[in-house]
Amino acid sequence: LKDEDVASVFTEMEPDDRVSLLDELPASVATRLLQALSPSERDLTATVLGYPEGSIGRRMSPEYVTAHPHLTAEETLGRVRAGLAGAETVYTLPVVDDRRRLVGVVGLRDLMSATPDHLVADLLDEPHSARATDDAETAARWCADLRLLALPVVDDEGRLVGILTVDDALRILEDAESEDQARIGGSEPLRRPYLATPVLAIVRSRVVWLLVLAVGATLTVQVLEVFEATLAQKVTLSLFIPLLIGTGGNTGNQAATTVTRALALGDVRPRDVLAVLARELRVGLSLGLVLGAVGFVVAGLAYGAPIGAVIGLTLLSICTLAATVGGVMPLVAKTLRVDPAVFSNPFITTFVDATGLLVYFLIARAVLGL
Amino acid sequence: LKDEDVASVFTEMEPDDRVSLLDELPASVATRLLQALSPSERDLTATVLGYPEGSIGRRMSPEYVTAHPHLTAEETLGRVRAGLAGAETVYTLPVVDDRRRLVGVVGLRDLMSATPDHLVADLLDEPHSARATDDAETAARWCADLRLLALPVVDDEGRLVGILTVDDALRILEDAESEDQARIGGSEPLRRPYLATPVLAIVRSRVVWLLVLAVGATLTVQVLEVFEATLAQKVTLSLFIPLLIGTGGNTGNQAATTVTRALALGDVRPRDVLAVLARELRVGLSLGLVLGAVGFVVAGLAYGAPIGAVIGLTLLSICTLAATVGGVMPLVAKTLRVDPAVFSNPFITTFVDATGLLVYFLIARAVLGL
Repeated sequence: LKDEDVASVFTEMEPDDRVSLLDELPASVATRLLQALSPSERDLTATVLGYPEGSIGRRMSPEYVTAHPHLTAEETLGRVRAGLAGAETVYTLPVVDDRRRLVGVVGLRDLMSATPDHLVADLLDEPHSARATDDAETAARWCADLRLLALPVVDDEGRLVGILTVDDALRILEDAESEDQARIGGSEPLRRPYLATPVLAIVRSRVVWLLVLAVGATLTVQVLEVFEATLAQKVTLSLFIPLLIGTGGNTGNQAATTVTRALALGDVRPRDVLAVLARELRVGLSLGLVLGAVGFVVAGLAYGAPIGAVIGLTLLSICTLAATVGGVMPLVAKTLRVDPAVFSNPFITTFVDATGLLVYFLIARAVLGL
Repeated sequence: LKDEDVASVFTEMEPDDRVSLLDELPASVATRLLQALSPSERDLTATVLGYPEGSIGRRMSPEYVTAHPHLTAEETLGRVRAGLAGAETVYTLPVVDDRRRLVGVVGLRDLMSATPDHLVADLLDEPHSARATDDAETAARWCADLRLLALPVVDDEGRLVGILTVDDALRILEDAESEDQARIGGSEPLRRPYLATPVLAIVRSRVVWLLVLAVGATLTVQVLEVFEATLAQKVTLSLFIPLLIGTGGNTGNQAATTVTRALALGDVRPRDVLAVLARELRVGLSLGLVLGAVGFVVAGLAYGAPIGAVIGLTLLSICTLAATVGGVMPLVAKTLRVDPAVFSNPFITTFVDATGLLVYFLIARAVLGL
């Protein structure tokens, strides 16, 4: 039975039969079988192997050359030359033991600079690796952060199942960042370069979010309606509406953008929610004290001390509220398995607008005795 | 005179003397001298060589192994082995002619799979390269987009002066993206991971922008003051202020974020300003027609046809204005050599808030005959 025969039988099997077979086979044979599949068949098999949508198991390449600790540099270079054609990269070689467990990596330049009879065991580096079930973006980010040319991917038992090369990692990161940025701006990512995208497609990528946000913003109309009598009594209060909700929106966006970026970089995880809450509460209070003091003085000089007090107290409350909500929202989104960027700036602005107005008029009524 | 002696004399020279000397020397000697300098001295020399702040000339490595078209694969592999220790990478080799002009690149794997007497001239690939004076972020983006392990850097005469490796490109891109994202959110980038940054440093990264934006937002107070009499006559008008400026802000942010990202990816250049203007005008008009129609119906049902007409017409105008301003602003910023992200979302929101209110009250006065 030749490789191609096995491959053709394997290709024709149903994905779930394939996985039962794979479970029975040694990992090395399984990997060889996977290599024979077309990309779409491979994706199908990845599903059945249990690699979830968006996992690195779906994006890794099964085409690599392995090194072994007990072989010499020269023998390994021979393997490299023999495997060159079919491998995604040969500049970083995963080193596996006899049971196919990843024990390290070795760089081609280290093999080339070593004496021919040097053992791979003495040349190998620490084995950074990702699990096949890990999130693709996280694994790609890790590959980029560690400045690796390739990151080995292992299964739950630590056996090598694939390799992520830096160029594939870059592709994953670029897509993820375009998506994040579009969502932070409140639109869907474009699938083509901007100038090559039809105007109608651009309109479509934005209009749904705009309508959703506009519906959300009717909340602000309703809040103001409740206070319509107060507004009629004291029209001056309406002058500050854009300034107050604008500052709230800016404060919320700052917090959301910082935390969203920290999430993408892996500096913050969803379980850090309390730490983030505590920090943003203090940041928001500090910002509120500064802006509130300035607001009190400026508005007080222009419209009298009572209005100054209302504006100062409202800015203090809004900044604290906005920073806290803005900082925590991306973590909540991540926990709910929603893209944190979706839940970010425009949504936070809308939410902070409505609650900020409520706070504003409650403070105004209390201070001005309306 | 040994290399070290020359290097030590060279190190002690003033940077401007150095560059006069470099002008007189063949490029190969100049490169060797640059290699002997410490990073800070090298940066100094880069200045004098005319590589501007933020250019790739400041970030490239002068440590590489070159290949030559008339050498064989075997001879070149020998050069690689000899140069391994001092080179930044040997996986992509720049190929230069006798006058040190870049004529191509050759991958180590191609050298390894070729027969030993194969000439480099027959193995080399198209020479993608950056100019040393090119913007560092643009060059890094290019290296990443082309999925290159290394991008050769040349001077104005096409002579090789350095190499940008993918790991350095990744570092440049990551810094640039953290900065962009922070600025889109209206704050300064943090220099440390979020949870490791002191609260005071976070406050400092945000407070200046918040104050600047709050000062800008006093423009909205002034606009409303002009229309205080109109507001007193028709308090209902104040109910829609947050909804209208919120929609304007969202529309502007969508356009700004899309164009900022397109700029970063190199899909759009500053000279495309008219094309962007034309597209965003059409996108804004389309969005305005949809939102205006919905606004007319909803506000008309709730507050009567005249108010409905005011809201509908205002949404149409604001969406058109916001998309156009939001799309063009990043290009204006780039032309003025300001980070496009600085000029983006929060600034556009503030600007659109003030002009949007002006439009709103002018339309309201005309339609309602106030």
